[in-house]
Amino acid sequence: MERLRVPLLEESLYISMAPSALPLCEHTLKSSFTVPRRYLFGPGPSNVPPRILTAGSQPMLGHLHAETIEIMDHIKSGIQYAFQTQNRMTLAVSGPGHAAMECAIFNSVECGDSVLIAVNGIWGERAAEIAERIGAKVNKIVTSAGSYFQNDEIEQALSKYKPVLFFLTHGESSTGVVHPIDGIGELCHRYNCLFLVDSVAALGGSPIYMDKQDIDIMYTGSQKVLNVPPGTAPISFSERACCRIFSRKTKPVSYFLDLSWLANYWGCDRKSARAYHHTGPVTALYSLREGLAILAETGLENSWKRHKYVAAYFHEGLERIGLKPFVEDKKARLPTVTTIVAPPGYDWREITGYIMKNHNIEISGGLGPSVGMVLRVGLMGCNSNKPYVDMILEALTDALKHCHKSKV
Amino acid sequence: MERLRVPLLEESLYISMAPSALPLCEHTLKSSFTVPRRYLFGPGPSNVPPRILTAGSQPMLGHLHAETIEIMDHIKSGIQYAFQTQNRMTLAVSGPGHAAMECAIFNSVECGDSVLIAVNGIWGERAAEIAERIGAKVNKIVTSAGSYFQNDEIEQALSKYKPVLFFLTHGESSTGVVHPIDGIGELCHRYNCLFLVDSVAALGGSPIYMDKQDIDIMYTGSQKVLNVPPGTAPISFSERACCRIFSRKTKPVSYFLDLSWLANYWGCDRKSARAYHHTGPVTALYSLREGLAILAETGLENSWKRHKYVAAYFHEGLERIGLKPFVEDKKARLPTVTTIVAPPGYDWREITGYIMKNHNIEISGGLGPSVGMVLRVGLMGCNSNKPYVDMILEALTDALKHCHKSKV
Repeated sequence: MERLRVPLLEESLYISMAPSALPLCEHTLKSSFTVPRRYLFGPGPSNVPPRILTAGSQPMLGHLHAETIEIMDHIKSGIQYAFQTQNRMTLAVSGPGHAAMECAIFNSVECGDSVLIAVNGIWGERAAEIAERIGAKVNKIVTSAGSYFQNDEIEQALSKYKPVLFFLTHGESSTGVVHPIDGIGELCHRYNCLFLVDSVAALGGSPIYMDKQDIDIMYTGSQKVLNVPPGTAPISFSERACCRIFSRKTKPVSYFLDLSWLANYWGCDRKSARAYHHTGPVTALYSLREGLAILAETGLENSWKRHKYVAAYFHEGLERIGLKPFVEDKKARLPTVTTIVAPPGYDWREITGYIMKNHNIEISGGLGPSVGMVLRVGLMGCNSNKPYVDMILEALTDALKHCHKSKV
Repeated sequence: MERLRVPLLEESLYISMAPSALPLCEHTLKSSFTVPRRYLFGPGPSNVPPRILTAGSQPMLGHLHAETIEIMDHIKSGIQYAFQTQNRMTLAVSGPGHAAMECAIFNSVECGDSVLIAVNGIWGERAAEIAERIGAKVNKIVTSAGSYFQNDEIEQALSKYKPVLFFLTHGESSTGVVHPIDGIGELCHRYNCLFLVDSVAALGGSPIYMDKQDIDIMYTGSQKVLNVPPGTAPISFSERACCRIFSRKTKPVSYFLDLSWLANYWGCDRKSARAYHHTGPVTALYSLREGLAILAETGLENSWKRHKYVAAYFHEGLERIGLKPFVEDKKARLPTVTTIVAPPGYDWREITGYIMKNHNIEISGGLGPSVGMVLRVGLMGCNSNKPYVDMILEALTDALKHCHKSKV
């Protein structure tokens, strides 16, 4: 095809136009900037491989052009695979993981509804905050950072609070815990409650089966195992969730995140035409499609196994250099984001700063309930491999040698 | 710097691991896709020049890394310039224009507040819908598609409804009207009301001075004159708006769009540290920075003049080929998106389809109140130039010759 023509400025014509009546503000925008290459081994965003960056730099299309709709269909299929679901109501929210969290809660909860939130880290706290803002009666079960809930605790709370929705975090990236999922969906359904799972930090790195494990709503982010830039968030809703959502009495507070509109935009309803709802992030969808394609080519089980294997290799290495994984129960350790007990006598900020400065590697401190208690290392998607583990162990060893250690 | 190492798969180790207990769903994700190059002369998204696509394909950084924060500071300065404001509270929402619309209304309006919405096309309708969902008392002034409001009509409504917020669309892309702004902010302030302006379709293409015209909240989209992929939305709040917002009695319904969090994330408050709120769309911010830099290099006044000149050239050409601009009042014609009276006797769908198929050009039909009444042609940012006008006129002429015309 012919190249797009270069725009033509007809400066001579402007001179004759009246000058603006008001002075223009100045700007301090610099003419260029350079982005350094860096190892992103924090809890996310993870590094984006060239294949995905290239996909995202393809030419713009209209958000409802036939090719864009085909790409959206690919994405739907890719999410269904990654989530292990056949839900028709599967799509990507045009925003980060927090937008997906709001999408899940805004659509499934009405003002005055009772909800139950499992809090074992920051994500439960955030879900509670979101539900409170829309007037839900928020009930929490809380356990300490690094631990998780037993199914009988959950059942007691379901029985006591009779919630319409139970929120659980699959991969608690603030504490490094992967939560067991088996049996919980069944319990929720016994108590006529929807089961909502946040799998932002775990999806693709730790097994989860949306359909088989009776999950009603699940979402993830693009910038973790999928290695896609942040800005889109896959989400899926079961038939049971849809029944509840489409028979609610009031409209969700957000038009932008209203599932009835999103369903049509993503071709998940039974209407033949897609109406204009909002302008989706077209090039971000190219990238998301590519990230899902890479996961599909790798194979979900291979990806789960690699993350598990690499995490175990990392955890052994940590013990070898005298560091301690924060989560004692080995089977509860999240394979994507490892929490390490903050080395006694050190300032964790000095360690992360030293490693960033001297090794060009991002690792992170704690978040929410784990602040000051842990270091966090994320190895997600293309970053989950042994050579990177060796690099991090080397960097940590170096930091422990050179950072200030108090005598206490 | 050393290249990022290639991930290592240790397949041999996986074989010994137990197979998953549950079968995996299949996927139909294709391994590759090709994006065609197309002239995007609809109401948006517009074409993205290579410089912006390249900026967006630079390596990923953490959302709170020093370089990312510097890029966010550039963006802030670029928005201040484009909006002609010195508002400290200037940032980009991590979502499309609709997220910015919700951000503006969610933060400035509480349940039970009276708001006044000027409806002269689809955007007023959407603003009303959003305000209704959060329990505002929504009052509207309505005028027909293609027309606009007089200041005395607005004053009467302000006096009658005593709203806390008045919403007006600067560039009504559904009808092709650019709304006069002078004097309205002053009126709003006389009635103790905030003045909110949607300039998604007009910003950078038609003069507006946020500070001098007493606008309290204004937002735009990235995918129009800025030629940046959709997914970020510049927004700014006056001191007056901030005073109202930060003294509200209830929390906004959305945590994701809560200005007190966004202000901290964007370094607009007076706190020294930025807390983790959500993960911003890092690479989309690279693109947005680049789009704003191009506008700054072009010069805002030059951009306004070019859009005005090119639109006038287009409108003359339309008359020459027997088509009629929908907006009769020449000074009310939006320079970025032109509405054309749907040619009598033709099916507008056949015309847009013909031009897409035979000329590889997107133009669009009406939207909301203008459906069936108009064709819409957007010439925004790098697409605003005379050769493109000639191409469109040629395509329209060709379509009128070859599409079916009824005898009536």
